[in-house]
Amino acid sequence: MTTKTAIYNHAVNLFPICRSLSGSGVVETLSYIKKFLPNLNVETVKSGTQVFDWNVPQEWNINDAYVANSKGERVIDFNEHNLHILGYSEPFEGEMTFEELDAHLYSLPEQPDAIPYITSYYKRRWGFCLTENLRNEMRKSPKEKYHVKVDTTLEDGDLNYGELIIKGQTDEEILISTYICHPSMANNELSGPCVTLELASWLESLQGEHHYTYRILFLVETIGSIIYLSKHLEYLKKHLKAGYVLSCVGDNLDYSVVNTPDENTASEIALEHVLKHHTGKYSKYPFTQRGSDERQYCSAGVDLPVAGFCRSKYAEFPEYHTSLDDLDFISEEGLFGAYEVMQKVITLFENNAVYKTKVLGEPQLGKRGLYPSISTKETAAQTRDMMNLIAYSNGSRSLLEIAEKTNTSISKFYPIVPKLLEADVMEKHETASVCFPKIN
Amino acid sequence: MTTKTAIYNHAVNLFPICRSLSGSGVVETLSYIKKFLPNLNVETVKSGTQVFDWNVPQEWNINDAYVANSKGERVIDFNEHNLHILGYSEPFEGEMTFEELDAHLYSLPEQPDAIPYITSYYKRRWGFCLTENLRNEMRKSPKEKYHVKVDTTLEDGDLNYGELIIKGQTDEEILISTYICHPSMANNELSGPCVTLELASWLESLQGEHHYTYRILFLVETIGSIIYLSKHLEYLKKHLKAGYVLSCVGDNLDYSVVNTPDENTASEIALEHVLKHHTGKYSKYPFTQRGSDERQYCSAGVDLPVAGFCRSKYAEFPEYHTSLDDLDFISEEGLFGAYEVMQKVITLFENNAVYKTKVLGEPQLGKRGLYPSISTKETAAQTRDMMNLIAYSNGSRSLLEIAEKTNTSISKFYPIVPKLLEADVMEKHETASVCFPKIN
Amino acid sequence: MTTKTAIYNHAVNLFPICRSLSGSGVVETLSYIKKFLPNLNVETVKSGTQVFDWNVPQEWNINDAYVANSKGERVIDFNEHNLHILGYSEPFEGEMTFEELDAHLYSLPEQPDAIPYITSYYKRRWGFCLTENLRNEMRKSPKEKYHVKVDTTLEDGDLNYGELIIKGQTDEEILISTYICHPSMANNELSGPCVTLELASWLESLQGEHHYTYRILFLVETIGSIIYLSKHLEYLKKHLKAGYVLSCVGDNLDYSVVNTPDENTASEIALEHVLKHHTGKYSKYPFTQRGSDERQYCSAGVDLPVAGFCRSKYAEFPEYHTSLDDLDFISEEGLFGAYEVMQKVITLFENNAVYKTKVLGEPQLGKRGLYPSISTKETAAQTRDMMNLIAYSNGSRSLLEIAEKTNTSISKFYPIVPKLLEADVMEKHETASVCFPKIN
Repeated sequence: MTTKTAIYNHAVNLFPICRSLSGSGVVETLSYIKKFLPNLNVETVKSGTQVFDWNVPQEWNINDAYVANSKGERVIDFNEHNLHILGYSEPFEGEMTFEELDAHLYSLPEQPDAIPYITSYYKRRWGFCLTENLRNEMRKSPKEKYHVKVDTTLEDGDLNYGELIIKGQTDEEILISTYICHPSMANNELSGPCVTLELASWLESLQGEHHYTYRILFLVETIGSIIYLSKHLEYLKKHLKAGYVLSCVGDNLDYSVVNTPDENTASEIALEHVLKHHTGKYSKYPFTQRGSDERQYCSAGVDLPVAGFCRSKYAEFPEYHTSLDDLDFISEEGLFGAYEVMQKVITLFENNAVYKTKVLGEPQLGKRGLYPSISTKETAAQTRDMMNLIAYSNGSRSLLEIAEKTNTSISKFYPIVPKLLEADVMEKHETASVCFPKIN
Repeated sequence: MTTKTAIYNHAVNLFPICRSLSGSGVVETLSYIKKFLPNLNVETVKSGTQVFDWNVPQEWNINDAYVANSKGERVIDFNEHNLHILGYSEPFEGEMTFEELDAHLYSLPEQPDAIPYITSYYKRRWGFCLTENLRNEMRKSPKEKYHVKVDTTLEDGDLNYGELIIKGQTDEEILISTYICHPSMANNELSGPCVTLELASWLESLQGEHHYTYRILFLVETIGSIIYLSKHLEYLKKHLKAGYVLSCVGDNLDYSVVNTPDENTASEIALEHVLKHHTGKYSKYPFTQRGSDERQYCSAGVDLPVAGFCRSKYAEFPEYHTSLDDLDFISEEGLFGAYEVMQKVITLFENNAVYKTKVLGEPQLGKRGLYPSISTKETAAQTRDMMNLIAYSNGSRSLLEIAEKTNTSISKFYPIVPKLLEADVMEKHETASVCFPKIN
Repeated sequence: MTTKTAIYNHAVNLFPICRSLSGSGVVETLSYIKKFLPNLNVETVKSGTQVFDWNVPQEWNINDAYVANSKGERVIDFNEHNLHILGYSEPFEGEMTFEELDAHLYSLPEQPDAIPYITSYYKRRWGFCLTENLRNEMRKSPKEKYHVKVDTTLEDGDLNYGELIIKGQTDEEILISTYICHPSMANNELSGPCVTLELASWLESLQGEHHYTYRILFLVETIGSIIYLSKHLEYLKKHLKAGYVLSCVGDNLDYSVVNTPDENTASEIALEHVLKHHTGKYSKYPFTQRGSDERQYCSAGVDLPVAGFCRSKYAEFPEYHTSLDDLDFISEEGLFGAYEVMQKVITLFENNAVYKTKVLGEPQLGKRGLYPSISTKETAAQTRDMMNLIAYSNGSRSLLEIAEKTNTSISKFYPIVPKLLEADVMEKHETASVCFPKIN
């Protein structure tokens, strides 16, 4: 199976699972991932544990939930779509008229076909989510009696997350963080873990032949990153050089960067360079538009260099947080586009460095066999890139800076660098991690 | 009387007085101000005193001045409008034809209804200013004999100015400087002192409960600020953190900033932030367009952080320096708008500081009672501002920087800060005066 | 003869000479220049000498070269136009059909009237350049027999260049570098040396009464600057403050700057300031568009502050490197415009400095005789410039910075500075060479 097919396939497999902050859905999802990434550590935190300003919530599990009419027909049924249940609903069973039930129903008048995704983690209540169309049907019989059953448990237990450390040659780190806490939604849930899973597989296949250590996290959103930071902040502050939150990376419509507060970290500089050359255009969202775990990573005092990466950004597409965000909304192309971008970003970090040309004045390329023996438009471009690389590499400009100054994709330089090192025209001057002055 | 009415009322009361660089007009104006600001020091400097490169000019007073025709009718009469006399005219009495008189007349061919305002402080001459219409009338009888009388005195005496120090909790200072040296003109004279008078009253009403010490100056333009700087420069260089020259702040047409040479002082950054959110748009004039006492405050070697603040900038409106700049050209709204802007600027300085969020990761607002109990569009905006303030306050960004980065008026943060301090979510990190890196 | 006429006249005189990298054409050209600049050192480097990554090529000379048809008529004749011979053609004599000859012919299908300029310095071959029209004529008789003669010599010998040091009061240096290695072309060859010759004459006429030492170089392109740098790099790194490569400075169509890699040297800041005020608009080319000896001066490790200056930039006009770049393509106006710009740039460097106003507050210009006795639009502008200069000269801003901040040509300040020094209003604070922070 190609990587492209594999990513989408993961989404298909993980789609039916009813995930939430805690409970069996998360456990099942992590087990699935661990099949492909055997080194994944699945960590457990007990309900009630204090983490920064929060306490880990109780574990929630659901067996069944439905609203049945007087004929015993299940009008709203969790088994049909797991978005039907309000997340973290407390247990309930009883009879009531539609009019009484209505206070517990959630629908979207402007998207009458969509079941909304709604949760109530920190206030105890129960409820059902349904399409506006179905609700309108039910409204026609306001006196109809319904049997309501919410068979859930909400009790002390565990909250889980997955962590995979892929050691590189140094302890300088790059973070990839994604989340596994939403029920059956495709872009705003599965796209992140599925792309990340394959990125991690690729990184593992490199067998440690890389500069950076990669820290891959499958967390539940918000409380998961808070838990993680409460355990690892000091280490991350020392070692983290760049990081990304992957969210909504499955549609094929746009690419988006969620910038950090000061918009000047290596993370966003590298990502924006790649996007500029990968696709030509992309959307930039300031940190005021944050919404996923960059909220924690970039919070005051945490201040880690972590940017958000999306295709269509969460909360910016109409299908967001509804049943319309399904497997048809994402695509192999969409997911693989995000995978490729992240691969290019990682490649950029691994390859960026400061080189120094050893020859003064322009070197004689011919005698060193560096001129192409055949002259095409493509070899001309390669020669031009090589000449630029030689001319600008004075021991203070990094490859990325030179790429920006010459309006070239840094990737054009990757095949040239080893040739120039081999020909003794250039030498490596500084390792990669120090090469990120602000570029504009 | 509301502040709005009071400001305009001061203008009405002060309008008839014939002010100049020195003499009874200035004294009378300062006496009027002192009625409302009893702590005002009225200072006196003797004619001939050397101040930097200048000598204080002689004191000028005027009893009467007119041009009467052969029938004894006063054709031009100082008592009708004090702009009729060329400022600092030397005494003269004599008979002459129109043709002889004409060399002493000043009018504006392109504004035939306006009496121009003209002075000759440093060269001895006498003259009359009149409308072009009247001059044209007089031109019809070139041989008409006139009796001219300029009953003025120009002799050693005093030059006066007013200074009010309103002590705050620190000796860090903010300057407000305005001028009282023009005869009956409204925008380019009275607007500045009248707005400043009420600002000073407001500051005094705070009874010292403010960080900054405010230095309020009612000077004569140019020589007055030179005198003042010659006495206080060393102290100001040490203590002045920001300052404004208020001039032409009474019309209701525009708001203007006259920038300092390097356009990077706290004064203009704060003023432009306020104007951007107060009115949305305003005019920016580089220091090359300077014209009032910022000419002295920002001169080489003085280099104080003082910007100019106007509504329609001096020399940019057609009524400027003519009799058309009268009480109808200014308005209660115009004056009060400038008052409000300065009040907001002062409030900004008093409130700007660097805070540090004490909670790592996002805090739990609910348990601290910081979420609004009712959710409206307005409370949502407040919550968003609160979350931003918490997220960005990492001990290095000031409120103003955060306001700029989040494209929010800093004033939105004022009510939030005490709540966050109270809830122990945030602590104050640095006092206000160090918080002005260049913001863009 | 005026300078304007003289420059064009040099071009007329030097046009017929068949220059190349080496050989009698360069020698003859340097001899011509030395007639006007007797202090010119003509330096000689032996073939085979290693210079950085290169070896000095053999010396090439040409006696005759032609292609004659079966009737003995010279169809292509070096004596008619020296562009007809491929530069550095090796000797050859033989008979062949058109079909055999054709592989040795070079023409431009899209410019059928133009003889292209082509060389083969580092690979041995022979060839002829001709118009596409002539080639088409020849194509009609593919079997026609031709007698080909290339009477050249290519053997160990000398490569020459000219260097003129015009000593100033300090050993801080400004470089002007141009090239003398192309046969009969006007803009892309003679314009540079002819303008430079007259600039050097002007500088010598100053008899050392200047701050900077000027280093004037007449090199062959590429290998010439590499030779020069291999001998003088260490000294230049210590002393060179600015420099220009003059190329294609003879047409009257545009002005162009070829920027350095970081676009922040004194050279380009000064040149762009002059161009902005000299002509209002000009073209900027990034270092990626480099093509003349700035390729060597700005190469990694050499890193000298040398920018390129052209009128229409090389490779950007259709006549470039063809017989159409002739004496009609350049003009007295074009050449003299470039001369004037360089004169203004040099004047800028000589005059730029940091001054400090000694008077605090605005000085009294009247008592110092600094006010114009007559007031015209022009004197008003002069007074405004003087007031600005006084107000901004606080001992940290250079004249050029003040000119940029006040949107004034620095040249407006030159006549004012001595008046202000004389009147003791200002004093010199720092010499010129340190006054180039990046200006925007």
